[in-house]
Amino acid sequence: MNEQGSKSSGAAETGLGAAPPQAPGIEQLREQIDRLDRQLVGLLAQRRRVVEQVVQVKQQQDLPTFHPAREEDLISARRAQAAQAGLDPDYVEDLFRTVLRHSRVGQLRTLGRRGVRPGARVLIVGGGGSMGRFLAGWFTQSDYEVRVLDRVDWPQVGPLTAGLDLCLLAVPIGVTPAVAAEVGPRLPAGCILADITSLKGEPLKAMLSGYGGPVVGLHPLFGPATTTMDQQVVVVTPGRQREACQWLLDQLALWGNVLVETSADEHDEVMGIVQALRHFATFAFGQFLHARRVPILRALELSSPIYRLELAMVGRLFAQDPSLYAEIVFATPERLALLKDYIQSLQRNLGLVERGDKAEFAARFRQVAEWFGPFSEQALRESTFVVEKLVHRF
Amino acid sequence: MNEQGSKSSGAAETGLGAAPPQAPGIEQLREQIDRLDRQLVGLLAQRRRVVEQVVQVKQQQDLPTFHPAREEDLISARRAQAAQAGLDPDYVEDLFRTVLRHSRVGQLRTLGRRGVRPGARVLIVGGGGSMGRFLAGWFTQSDYEVRVLDRVDWPQVGPLTAGLDLCLLAVPIGVTPAVAAEVGPRLPAGCILADITSLKGEPLKAMLSGYGGPVVGLHPLFGPATTTMDQQVVVVTPGRQREACQWLLDQLALWGNVLVETSADEHDEVMGIVQALRHFATFAFGQFLHARRVPILRALELSSPIYRLELAMVGRLFAQDPSLYAEIVFATPERLALLKDYIQSLQRNLGLVERGDKAEFAARFRQVAEWFGPFSEQALRESTFVVEKLVHRF
Repeated sequence: MNEQGSKSSGAAETGLGAAPPQAPGIEQLREQIDRLDRQLVGLLAQRRRVVEQVVQVKQQQDLPTFHPAREEDLISARRAQAAQAGLDPDYVEDLFRTVLRHSRVGQLRTLGRRGVRPGARVLIVGGGGSMGRFLAGWFTQSDYEVRVLDRVDWPQVGPLTAGLDLCLLAVPIGVTPAVAAEVGPRLPAGCILADITSLKGEPLKAMLSGYGGPVVGLHPLFGPATTTMDQQVVVVTPGRQREACQWLLDQLALWGNVLVETSADEHDEVMGIVQALRHFATFAFGQFLHARRVPILRALELSSPIYRLELAMVGRLFAQDPSLYAEIVFATPERLALLKDYIQSLQRNLGLVERGDKAEFAARFRQVAEWFGPFSEQALRESTFVVEKLVHRF
Repeated sequence: MNEQGSKSSGAAETGLGAAPPQAPGIEQLREQIDRLDRQLVGLLAQRRRVVEQVVQVKQQQDLPTFHPAREEDLISARRAQAAQAGLDPDYVEDLFRTVLRHSRVGQLRTLGRRGVRPGARVLIVGGGGSMGRFLAGWFTQSDYEVRVLDRVDWPQVGPLTAGLDLCLLAVPIGVTPAVAAEVGPRLPAGCILADITSLKGEPLKAMLSGYGGPVVGLHPLFGPATTTMDQQVVVVTPGRQREACQWLLDQLALWGNVLVETSADEHDEVMGIVQALRHFATFAFGQFLHARRVPILRALELSSPIYRLELAMVGRLFAQDPSLYAEIVFATPERLALLKDYIQSLQRNLGLVERGDKAEFAARFRQVAEWFGPFSEQALRESTFVVEKLVHRF
């Protein structure tokens, strides 16, 4: 390579044109690639400037940020062009999804700040906590009049609730029912009462009995470390006067959230599994690694990308706030019963290994696979996709 | 938007130039974006053609596919250009990592097929199994003389081992020691004896006692469904005459694999945790979801991207071959003891929840977090990165 490289650059320097035309050397080809890459970045910068003009027009005309049909059209057109040019359409789609997401997040930064009801009065109860501060920030940037009620402000509860349009409870699960009972009777007619706890049954009941107006339960499935709400899920459990709550839901959607509606019972059942049980199992696994002093960095080196990701899913828990997880795991007696059931089922499966019964292991395995149906194939595809992303990133 | 769209296209159709110059409407801006995007794909196609020329030069001059320093230089240059052009350098790096990976995989498809010792004779014992067939395919494409020995071919073992350069055992863990004892004495001097089981202690011992020549244990951390070996990990546990085994390791590296060397003991200890225990826990979790008839699709809808990924890690197991997992989980008495320990530690942690001892939960949590050290932060970063990829893909 060095030889070839110095040969071609030498020819360029002396400018001797007598030699017969020869195939370009690797250094010349690399210069061509660099030139093309510079042009690529130049086009991306031009694209960015046009998108900024689009944002201005959208702002003036009050148009929404997203245009899913437009995005799919764009992707289809580029896929078709890629196929014609002999490029892998999946590869080109992958690149354009990155471009579109970047563009969407950039637009949200400007457009998503708009208020659906600017000037409306919002009280965040527990506004001193991390989620409370986070939400207060979003409402403030969207031109709401934001008030904060924290433990020390209880004497001010009268003036703080006066003329209120939204009362948002952002206090720990354990005290949410008590706070709802306390605050509910003070709210003016038409004000929305909402909470953001990760449990919906008890809090919703308490809000409905403490207040006779519009009530809605919310469970944002993200933490205060999020910088964008783009495509973050918020579970919505309607309580009373759904239409009166609509502007709040519209505001969340405008910020980029995806809203999923369900009943409080279904929410709590599903969350018992996907939150409480998963968190407990992950916590216990990390604890086990620690107790056995497993050499974690060495284990990572000896791991395939998918095992690295498995370990990362364990590690990430411990970079977060233990009290948040304790709240979720310790929330209800049903959750304790669920954990007990789970450990018993582990015991039963251990019996298979003790008896060396591989045939029964395989039979149970196939039973689950059949019951999962298309989910396992999809899971394999999705997780393989992200693992490939991880591999090419690091 | 429609209004603005029809206004501007109307102007374009009639060609009336009398109106004062006005800011472009959203449809015009979208046309500009489409034009830029078409140019982007055009540049990608040009880039591809230049890369194909690079592959030809590399083939003629026997140059390696990868050039990590060149890749990092390229990324740095584009990041700098992005910053100057007012673009987010991370965004531009993200795009170029995709471009480079695509280019690398494309090059591997041509260059990675080269044989380090073309014409050498390779015998795959268990070559009728899925991993055996997979490896036979790679050796064949790299111009080796590939022979296959399966259960039915035992009478031919004499002629099949004659003049052999590599004997690769691709049989189940349980029979690997017996097969090594049977085949070892028949190998000609200088031939490499290697295996690919997911356990290294017993198989390596059996190969060393069954054969006096070069021996190496291999554990490819991927399955036969892989289409590329790009950056796939192969664990290497040297046995005897490491230098004589070097050409085999070079061949694996040329195919794109990353080789990690360790002792058989360390390998088996780490794999007990990252394979046997994780697989068992994941199997048991899936089994539990099935036993409780958890509505899995609804759970996915109600999940944040990170929970979706957690569920996908469970689901993916069940899209695969149960016997492979049974082999790993049931492999040794040490693994059974490990599973027992794990369930006992779950029981102890359940005690915390029964007693409602949130303080102790948080204390243990912090202990693990401290012991993990920078790993949890890194895990949080890595998993958040892949989750963002997942969000913008689906």
